[in-house]
Amino acid sequence: MSSIGFIGLGNMGSHMARNLLRNGCKLVVCDVDATRVAQLKDEGAEVAKRPADVASTCKRIVTMLPTSSHVLTVFTADDGILKTMKSGTLCIDSSTIDQSVTVDVAKLVADKGGRYADAPVSGGVVGAKNATLTFMVGGDEKSFQDASQLLKFMGNNVVHCGKVGSGQATKICNNMLLGIQMIGVAETMNLGLKMGLEAKQLSSIINTSSGRCWSSDTYNPVPGVIDGIPPSNGYVGGFGCALMAKDLGLAQNASTAAQAPTPLGSLAHQMYRMLAQSTEFGKLDFGVVYQFLKSRCNK
Amino acid sequence: MSSIGFIGLGNMGSHMARNLLRNGCKLVVCDVDATRVAQLKDEGAEVAKRPADVASTCKRIVTMLPTSSHVLTVFTADDGILKTMKSGTLCIDSSTIDQSVTVDVAKLVADKGGRYADAPVSGGVVGAKNATLTFMVGGDEKSFQDASQLLKFMGNNVVHCGKVGSGQATKICNNMLLGIQMIGVAETMNLGLKMGLEAKQLSSIINTSSGRCWSSDTYNPVPGVIDGIPPSNGYVGGFGCALMAKDLGLAQNASTAAQAPTPLGSLAHQMYRMLAQSTEFGKLDFGVVYQFLKSRCNK
Amino acid sequence: MSSIGFIGLGNMGSHMARNLLRNGCKLVVCDVDATRVAQLKDEGAEVAKRPADVASTCKRIVTMLPTSSHVLTVFTADDGILKTMKSGTLCIDSSTIDQSVTVDVAKLVADKGGRYADAPVSGGVVGAKNATLTFMVGGDEKSFQDASQLLKFMGNNVVHCGKVGSGQATKICNNMLLGIQMIGVAETMNLGLKMGLEAKQLSSIINTSSGRCWSSDTYNPVPGVIDGIPPSNGYVGGFGCALMAKDLGLAQNASTAAQAPTPLGSLAHQMYRMLAQSTEFGKLDFGVVYQFLKSRCNK
Amino acid sequence: MSSIGFIGLGNMGSHMARNLLRNGCKLVVCDVDATRVAQLKDEGAEVAKRPADVASTCKRIVTMLPTSSHVLTVFTADDGILKTMKSGTLCIDSSTIDQSVTVDVAKLVADKGGRYADAPVSGGVVGAKNATLTFMVGGDEKSFQDASQLLKFMGNNVVHCGKVGSGQATKICNNMLLGIQMIGVAETMNLGLKMGLEAKQLSSIINTSSGRCWSSDTYNPVPGVIDGIPPSNGYVGGFGCALMAKDLGLAQNASTAAQAPTPLGSLAHQMYRMLAQSTEFGKLDFGVVYQFLKSRCNK
Repeated sequence: MSSIGFIGLGNMGSHMARNLLRNGCKLVVCDVDATRVAQLKDEGAEVAKRPADVASTCKRIVTMLPTSSHVLTVFTADDGILKTMKSGTLCIDSSTIDQSVTVDVAKLVADKGGRYADAPVSGGVVGAKNATLTFMVGGDEKSFQDASQLLKFMGNNVVHCGKVGSGQATKICNNMLLGIQMIGVAETMNLGLKMGLEAKQLSSIINTSSGRCWSSDTYNPVPGVIDGIPPSNGYVGGFGCALMAKDLGLAQNASTAAQAPTPLGSLAHQMYRMLAQSTEFGKLDFGVVYQFLKSRCNK
Repeated sequence: MSSIGFIGLGNMGSHMARNLLRNGCKLVVCDVDATRVAQLKDEGAEVAKRPADVASTCKRIVTMLPTSSHVLTVFTADDGILKTMKSGTLCIDSSTIDQSVTVDVAKLVADKGGRYADAPVSGGVVGAKNATLTFMVGGDEKSFQDASQLLKFMGNNVVHCGKVGSGQATKICNNMLLGIQMIGVAETMNLGLKMGLEAKQLSSIINTSSGRCWSSDTYNPVPGVIDGIPPSNGYVGGFGCALMAKDLGLAQNASTAAQAPTPLGSLAHQMYRMLAQSTEFGKLDFGVVYQFLKSRCNK
Repeated sequence: MSSIGFIGLGNMGSHMARNLLRNGCKLVVCDVDATRVAQLKDEGAEVAKRPADVASTCKRIVTMLPTSSHVLTVFTADDGILKTMKSGTLCIDSSTIDQSVTVDVAKLVADKGGRYADAPVSGGVVGAKNATLTFMVGGDEKSFQDASQLLKFMGNNVVHCGKVGSGQATKICNNMLLGIQMIGVAETMNLGLKMGLEAKQLSSIINTSSGRCWSSDTYNPVPGVIDGIPPSNGYVGGFGCALMAKDLGLAQNASTAAQAPTPLGSLAHQMYRMLAQSTEFGKLDFGVVYQFLKSRCNK
Repeated sequence: MSSIGFIGLGNMGSHMARNLLRNGCKLVVCDVDATRVAQLKDEGAEVAKRPADVASTCKRIVTMLPTSSHVLTVFTADDGILKTMKSGTLCIDSSTIDQSVTVDVAKLVADKGGRYADAPVSGGVVGAKNATLTFMVGGDEKSFQDASQLLKFMGNNVVHCGKVGSGQATKICNNMLLGIQMIGVAETMNLGLKMGLEAKQLSSIINTSSGRCWSSDTYNPVPGVIDGIPPSNGYVGGFGCALMAKDLGLAQNASTAAQAPTPLGSLAHQMYRMLAQSTEFGKLDFGVVYQFLKSRCNK
């Protein structure tokens, strides 16, 4: 099998690369963090100094980067992928970034004869480690099929969402809705308890009624309602407020560009923004919005 | 069996009274609307002129009224229930009103030796007609048991939520969450479609992801995503914007009194408030918020 | 001069009563707080045990109470004003309460031959102490004129707003707008500073542009922009977050009852609600919302 | 005097260019709209086909373009300004765009030896026509002084806001605050009228109280309160909802990038977004938000 490039060995990417190695892939990795690179080298990966060096060797390249501008740079800089990319190369970007940047980069790749699939993930560091990520993939049918051959080593759910950019769109749509619902459940549970209701009983009635949702029946933010999830464990681990704020920021960028009104989405964004930067709540799971509402109301 | 009083023969109440008659109950009805009263009389009910006349005859009384002040009046006016109510009478109020009024009235009833259960419903006019309502009941165990004997003739789901007032609290909690989620789904679907996604595919991915909720998987507001529900039928029937605005108004009254912050709940309230009074959308199912967001964005 | 009744000797009321005494009024005071009552007695006031005792002695009665339900009780309880009030009595309520309660109580007073003016104040404890309060008065022309004879001893600005209830309406309208503007200025200044602007320069440009407002040019929430106001003095003194949350709660009650959409007003209410209950910000001037936004964003 | 380049002859730009001509400037104009170009040619301007042709002739260039991407293109495209710009050229961009793009373009200009000032305007088409615009200028002292020599021909108020980018920052800060205040005043006036107050009286009290602001005392959105402004003239002319939505979108982009929470700013953005796309309100002055709130509440 030909070598696979992997650029971006952060908290997510290093686990994902490792899972490719474990499944027998030959890997060429690249990152600015020398320690991470050395670690993967010890585990059997080859190392490339610059994205361009990855692209001159590999015809399948996975990128996993923190922001839109990182992706732009890795592809378009003087030592970027596009400088050396061979015709027919498949670029799979698992970063969560602005859909508009995804579409722009995909076009530049196509202009040089390459193929592109956006494949942002959900499932967090735990999913990355255990290869239980969900990939939401945008791209043509063939790119999706080819990408799936690799993605299945890193996750257990690979969903085709449509053409290029659809992966990004689907992910931020789902996460905007999730972000709204979690605050909605937190407000509701806090109000209900203040009105004299009992938490497990209230959530159990909601879960069989029209208020039912994942944030209520699977990830209820009130400690003790559901065992074994971050809200019942001090909100440690899970999906951090800062990541939710990032995703909702992308949703707002998209809404503004598309001129689609999202009143609740924009307010939810502002609330995670406030939480993300708070000393008290910033590093915790996004369910901590329940504590934020409650502590601000300790009558 | 002793006679049962029924006060309030509106769109909901007249069906509910009829279902009691059909199950062999002897009924004494009372309403300001002479036509409705005459109709029920034709169907076998006795008629009382004033709530006090109902209370002097019946030791079980169901009330189904539009607002807090109607309930207050029916109980405390000079010709109200409390003037003649016998010790041991069970009052079951199925109105959706302020919890604080429920608690106040229940206390007045108790002071005169009566018992009280709040039992607001969900299920709408169709549920009232078909006896498929859900009752959320607040009251002590015995009152709940006794009330259930009647409520089961009018609905198919009778849930005990806790002490007096818990029915009201549970209903507005569920409906506040529902109101938030419906707007959330409407914003999300509208944004997703503008970003190039396809409605059925997007909702199907959301429905197996963390954005999953009743408003997405059972009552999706985008026409054609789910057949046989109001959003696929011109938003006719269903749960009207004005009723949602009313329930969210009650939720806001409760939040203000309890000093519980509900940022999304209050914004959702304002949006249904705007919809409720609109010529275009006011009479339609609350899922029409999707059309409101979409029409305001017809680029 | 005939005796004047004064019921409610809290942080505001005790100063107001004192200012009447200082201007030569004969006063009959009443409060549940024995210490406050004793203090005013030392300063020359007579004491009444119950509101009814005040009303049997005085034909001009000022009330200054914390909430709607206190006002209701003082007027309608078994030992309340209405039990003994003489025909022709002028009741001046300076409490800030629900307009609907004002209107109800005014009607009960009229039914017994009395007159009523609502006269809520702005100016805070300092204004109460220094007799520099503003009174916003609702009532007929004669009641306004008669009330003004007393109010001028307690404030330096007495404004006639219209019929009974207009004082309450005007006050919560002004304060809702104020509450919105203060958050608006806080958001704007925080954003501007993060974008590299200098605080005094930004506010000075805004103050000659279309963003100009009292919260920017007279009470700017950024420390150091304007000297001698609470924001430049650790947000000590001034208008507390809890009082702003109370007033915006009244505005929300009115909006819900009137079915008037107030999206920004309801969100502002929620934000002061969160601030009011916070350990860190709860006791401080409402300009501290600037610190709340800033501290949540300390990257 | 050397020739001045002017790129962007839209509704604003064509008037601004004309005012330069009237003041004796030699002009080289450029636009994609042939009609506008022909008009200016008739009035004495020279014509350039491409931005690069402007830059090869003129050492002072004014740009007035609708969006960030237009500005990027005019500077960086193959036929853009940067291709031919001479060292020492002063570029004055009067467009209202993302501050981040301003800073990027200014750097590219500096890299080629040029100077840059951002100088967004307020005052609208009427101000552009009558040379009564306000310019908010960002750039070093010398660039500001040199730019002012031209800007004074097009406006009557030229304000130095700080370094490059400060003009954009100041403008969107002021306009975000303005956008919030206008909705705040509209909500307040609508609520007050529904509570029985009279519009002129309410605004007059607010205007001497802490709710005072430009949107209340100078541009009150209730028809008839202030004569001679768009709200008293069917909301025709003035500052359109779409432009306000654009500016608040830029404010949101900046807030998201700076991680500065702007809860009211983001909600105000969503409301103008809804208005901007409405058939009924979209083309009208932003004060029409009052009618939007009112019409949705026609009880």
